[in-house]
Amino acid sequence: MSTLLVQPQLSLRTALVIGAGPIGTSVALALTAGGVRVHLRDTDPEVAARAAELGAGTLEPPGGNTDLAVVAVPPGRVGAVVRECQRRGLARHTLDVAGVKAGPLADVLARGCDPARHIGGHPLVEGAADGPLTARADLFRGRPWVLSPLPQTHTDTLNAALDVVTACGATPVLMDAAEHDRAVALVAQAPRVLTSLLAARLEAAPPGAVRLSETGVRPRPWASEDSRGRIEALLANAPAVADVLEGLAGDIVAVVAALRAASGDGTADTGGRLTGLLAPHGTPAVRNRTDGSS
Amino acid sequence: MSTLLVQPQLSLRTALVIGAGPIGTSVALALTAGGVRVHLRDTDPEVAARAAELGAGTLEPPGGNTDLAVVAVPPGRVGAVVRECQRRGLARHTLDVAGVKAGPLADVLARGCDPARHIGGHPLVEGAADGPLTARADLFRGRPWVLSPLPQTHTDTLNAALDVVTACGATPVLMDAAEHDRAVALVAQAPRVLTSLLAARLEAAPPGAVRLSETGVRPRPWASEDSRGRIEALLANAPAVADVLEGLAGDIVAVVAALRAASGDGTADTGGRLTGLLAPHGTPAVRNRTDGSS
Repeated sequence: MSTLLVQPQLSLRTALVIGAGPIGTSVALALTAGGVRVHLRDTDPEVAARAAELGAGTLEPPGGNTDLAVVAVPPGRVGAVVRECQRRGLARHTLDVAGVKAGPLADVLARGCDPARHIGGHPLVEGAADGPLTARADLFRGRPWVLSPLPQTHTDTLNAALDVVTACGATPVLMDAAEHDRAVALVAQAPRVLTSLLAARLEAAPPGAVRLSETGVRPRPWASEDSRGRIEALLANAPAVADVLEGLAGDIVAVVAALRAASGDGTADTGGRLTGLLAPHGTPAVRNRTDGSS
Repeated sequence: MSTLLVQPQLSLRTALVIGAGPIGTSVALALTAGGVRVHLRDTDPEVAARAAELGAGTLEPPGGNTDLAVVAVPPGRVGAVVRECQRRGLARHTLDVAGVKAGPLADVLARGCDPARHIGGHPLVEGAADGPLTARADLFRGRPWVLSPLPQTHTDTLNAALDVVTACGATPVLMDAAEHDRAVALVAQAPRVLTSLLAARLEAAPPGAVRLSETGVRPRPWASEDSRGRIEALLANAPAVADVLEGLAGDIVAVVAALRAASGDGTADTGGRLTGLLAPHGTPAVRNRTDGSS
């Protein structure tokens, strides 16, 4: 029960961080703070230079094999970058941190990479819904960090990834790639799509209407400057997000039908139907329905 | 620019508050604090007695015509209660505070009430989305309070209602009843339905999924104990809420179609389509769409 802060003992000595966006740079800052020698790389030399100025690592290319490469690039580029790391002997293990897991891992396999030395990961970032992130060493502190090993992933690779998670102060959560993608679609991506669609409708509402909202503030749809990464993430997880949204559209249509029935004749037990749809506690019929059995 | 708090000068002397739920009792508390003699009435004598104990007014029936009756009953009962007030000479003016306006006002007319002496109102309450309200004198302070006069409503009746709004520290907003109902459907009721449907789906999600949410907290659908009033309010505004939800269901279906196209072939400009749907800033095609022109 000591309150002494113990510096985690990492077995990583050197790392290569590929992609110096906010996620990659935050990982690099945390690794550097943990005593790891971090090499930074980005397709844009200015972006890499800015990360180096923040103290995230060095711009010098690694002399030989680093212990681990953190692949912080868009989902569609993960496979190619992992392949390059393995071919050129840049790192013994690779960990990608893309926000979607099944597609990049399938790509890693399709490109003939050695799956024993790769592992997928997804650090869940607080405030990711609020706009552009800023790199900082504690971006992942206390947050879950999903790790999705391939069936072939070696325990050494898993342990190297756990070192990164530990250095970042995050909580590792092992999860199957497809399960991860469904979960993110349900708890994060689909809700953000709904918020954005609702905001777009409020934009078109008369100003008087907005005064009546709880806050009196008109929410904004995804601004175009924030949207590119989110649209990419949606596309990378398109089937799972589409499934959740399709289910919700069905739920909404059921509510609309109940409301239209209420306007039509008052004989139907519309209140009961709506309660079942909106307050399903203790109503088994609806609980089944939300399980997708209808 | 004086910071002296001036006690508003009300022309109301006596009022009858019918319905001692949180809204009615809060109005009664504010009126009493403003020096008005308030008579309380509720179909449940215990509820009325509790409001009186809070200092909201007296349980004595009014001797004759009060200046104004605040009709704080469910939307479906407004017409009958206004009729009773006018028939029995309980109040010179009546103000209903139902959360939906068109239906109750139509009912007031259909029951042959004198429309010159009635006005509809809706105090917008902070925290109404968070669960059961508690009566307090400052419940409406700084919040908008919609007033929806009938075409026949007399200026004296409007001024009596404005006195109530002033006593409550709210900001009066004159608005057509149908416009009010559409606005509330758009900014409050439809978003709450969406939140509730999403929460119902999260309830059915595996626990691991919920750990990945921004907050790690599983939102709750409307609990059955909170839901009765909200379901009543939805039913009372069924056509307007159904219209908003139907539009949103259409938006969601369009997003689903774009996502399915992305999973199918990569040739379609799905990113562009999604950006148009979710980040419509500066994209006229979508701005038209949210205006309902498609």
